Amino acid sequence: MKTVLINEVFKQPKKFRNLNIAIRAWVVSNRGNKKIRFITISDGSTVEQLQVTIKGNKFNFDELDSIRMGAAIETKGVVKLTPNAKQPLELVAERFKLLKNVDSDFPIQKQEINVETLREFPHLRHRTNLFRSVMLIRSTLAQEIHRYFAEKGFLYFNSPIITSNDGEGAGELFYVNDGNKKNPFFPLNNATLGVTGQLHAESYAIGFNKVYTFAPTFRAEHSNTKKHAAEFWMVEPEVAFYDLKQIIRLADDLLKNVIKNTIAKHPKEFAYLSENIDKNLINRLKSFIKTKLSILDYKDAIFELQKVKTRFENQDIKFGLDLGTEHERYLAEEVIKGPVAIINFPKSFKAFYMHQNNDGETVASFDMLVPGIGELIGGSQREVRYEKLLQRALEVGINQEDLQWYFDLRRFGDAGSSGFGIGFERLVMYVTGVDNIRDVIPYPRTSGNIKM
Amino acid sequence: MKTVLINEVFKQPKKFRNLNIAIRAWVVSNRGNKKIRFITISDGSTVEQLQVTIKGNKFNFDELDSIRMGAAIETKGVVKLTPNAKQPLELVAERFKLLKNVDSDFPIQKQEINVETLREFPHLRHRTNLFRSVMLIRSTLAQEIHRYFAEKGFLYFNSPIITSNDGEGAGELFYVNDGNKKNPFFPLNNATLGVTGQLHAESYAIGFNKVYTFAPTFRAEHSNTKKHAAEFWMVEPEVAFYDLKQIIRLADDLLKNVIKNTIAKHPKEFAYLSENIDKNLINRLKSFIKTKLSILDYKDAIFELQKVKTRFENQDIKFGLDLGTEHERYLAEEVIKGPVAIINFPKSFKAFYMHQNNDGETVASFDMLVPGIGELIGGSQREVRYEKLLQRALEVGINQEDLQWYFDLRRFGDAGSSGFGIGFERLVMYVTGVDNIRDVIPYPRTSGNIKM
Repeated sequence: MKTVLINEVFKQPKKFRNLNIAIRAWVVSNRGNKKIRFITISDGSTVEQLQVTIKGNKFNFDELDSIRMGAAIETKGVVKLTPNAKQPLELVAERFKLLKNVDSDFPIQKQEINVETLREFPHLRHRTNLFRSVMLIRSTLAQEIHRYFAEKGFLYFNSPIITSNDGEGAGELFYVNDGNKKNPFFPLNNATLGVTGQLHAESYAIGFNKVYTFAPTFRAEHSNTKKHAAEFWMVEPEVAFYDLKQIIRLADDLLKNVIKNTIAKHPKEFAYLSENIDKNLINRLKSFIKTKLSILDYKDAIFELQKVKTRFENQDIKFGLDLGTEHERYLAEEVIKGPVAIINFPKSFKAFYMHQNNDGETVASFDMLVPGIGELIGGSQREVRYEKLLQRALEVGINQEDLQWYFDLRRFGDAGSSGFGIGFERLVMYVTGVDNIRDVIPYPRTSGNIKM
Repeated sequence: MKTVLINEVFKQPKKFRNLNIAIRAWVVSNRGNKKIRFITISDGSTVEQLQVTIKGNKFNFDELDSIRMGAAIETKGVVKLTPNAKQPLELVAERFKLLKNVDSDFPIQKQEINVETLREFPHLRHRTNLFRSVMLIRSTLAQEIHRYFAEKGFLYFNSPIITSNDGEGAGELFYVNDGNKKNPFFPLNNATLGVTGQLHAESYAIGFNKVYTFAPTFRAEHSNTKKHAAEFWMVEPEVAFYDLKQIIRLADDLLKNVIKNTIAKHPKEFAYLSENIDKNLINRLKSFIKTKLSILDYKDAIFELQKVKTRFENQDIKFGLDLGTEHERYLAEEVIKGPVAIINFPKSFKAFYMHQNNDGETVASFDMLVPGIGELIGGSQREVRYEKLLQRALEVGINQEDLQWYFDLRRFGDAGSSGFGIGFERLVMYVTGVDNIRDVIPYPRTSGNIKM
């Protein structure tokens, strides 16, 4: 008899009707009496739970009665379709074996526990419906991203994590070493954790054409917000010969495909999240998939914001403003009523490597804003002109020697490239409706918090 | 006219015969005279190069003559099949545009450069046939690993990188902080870079059943060998309810599938490597795919090694010996003549979390050894008995409080799990025949080396 996963059974009930199957899973609820028991179980393959009905003399009802939520069990039985019941099928047990019970201090209980409390138990919280749904969707999003790029012929490129380059020039660096002060593993104060894989990815785009990274990145950001974590995953495609318009099209196509395929794979998880987290979730995502991405020049965005400036906390709205989440959300939610790429930002608050437009004050960059989140993606066409690139780097205080290898790409056959970065956890937040980054990554890292 | 990738053309020559196409790529060689030029180009989609033939009055032969290896170009022309020539097709140019030449100090030249010299240019060395082949295969191996697990219903799980746990208890840790001594981001001397994602992955296997990590891991290992790097990628599946035999079967099936699919996607790259790196490469890999994995008890392995002890550098061969590469390779290459899983190692030199066998001296662990490399995979059934696990952890000096959350899994419905770790770079070495880890990862990190 084959051990099957619960999602296989729910996906093809007719195939399994009246079949004998074996399942190993964990108990979600246990009710009944000394003659019949209904035990629902989850094996993590879906948020949907299977009810096991247990009756007959061969079972030890005292032991069954003792089984707590979270216990590991093994059961064999016959799949019965129950078209008139709330759930479409059940398993009528022929065998039911307790593999391992839980001690009584198991913190996950049937009553809903708030997410703040659950953050105290990052090793256990995935055994709730909420985190089961979020982590299943997170995993599928990641796998679909790899699949998308693989099918389009992108090279999966691994930027170094430990690096001597501060790719964004924004500070907020973590330093790494082995604690040996006399003979350190790396030169002191030189080895940092990468804040982006982009600069290294550019070096591989020149030669491999289309590359992407998907890896952890790090910022020692002390800001304690719902959107920031010290450790997060980034997806960073870089494509040679692409200009700004082409790379925006790639970002749009990637998101639409990945989200569409993820929705198709997780009907039950999205149903759960729609019911419990955000009633509008599915509509919002479906509308994202079918709505053409709008493109709005930064100057026009400022004009739109100025019209309604009194509604914002930061009302100093003029050319040069680095948009805050309140401005971003207003543009996406009320001006465009959907996803929008803001383009051509002032160079003053953008990174040194972006293509300088002819107006002398803006760069060929874009931020993709989505309703409910604000910025989801940031990207740009890169400055391909050696002199202009170097001049801008020096202006913002970069030490030429540190990045000479990067500037040199422009002397060695670089005819231009464009790329963008997706904060992967922000994508998971957008797709699940969960509003705190701490709840979409298994073991979140923020200032002072390094649990486990 | 569509811009196509060179590998698409070579894959389906008949489809492209006499078609007009556009290609953007980089120059590999440039020969000819002022009337006709033959320029071969690569766009990184394959190690195979396309020859572009350029003749006629409309071309500027002075400019064509100036084009150096590495230059970025754009060409449009007609695909002509050349069944009698060395290469099966060529492009007859109707347009040929130099997008960006290279400065004369471009270090990649037509003459073969040795790999040691190329390590000085990690940002440029992929523009040689060797590194083009290796990195294409590396990327496909990674994408195929994700695909394999996605198809088998595994959850892609992201262990934290920054962690307060030393998962192996082996020391050799990197410490992380933001350099602020008064008010550090993380508690001082507590935040380290993960040496494994396993402990955290176990917490998710209990609940999700089948999970895997694929992420960078770190060891401050000063040993300067061909097999060790300070930063490397690991693949770590963990499966609830699995015992040692089942997890070995998974490791074997994973490798065989992934290697088979990678070979199928890269005929030209494997041909290049077979010709230039290891004549026996394809035979070795094909033999690996079709040979049933052998399983050999550690005690029997010791018996085999004792028979020929004089051939080894380390001849102290007895129960308790931690096999060296010389022993591993002998077992795989001469005793088994193929891949072999050595099982049931002495607990003395294995990690504390492995299932303790009834003999009191061995643990349910395995190392998969392959010819040419030695150890490629290490794994084990985990100790599920709380008391035994805790006792062993204390014996090896682990602070109970640090890992109480991990021990607690055993009190909260953990009915056992098994898992293994693949050093991803070792897999790339095995599959490409390249014998130094520095040449299979884009930007290698070793003691004192943090270039770029």
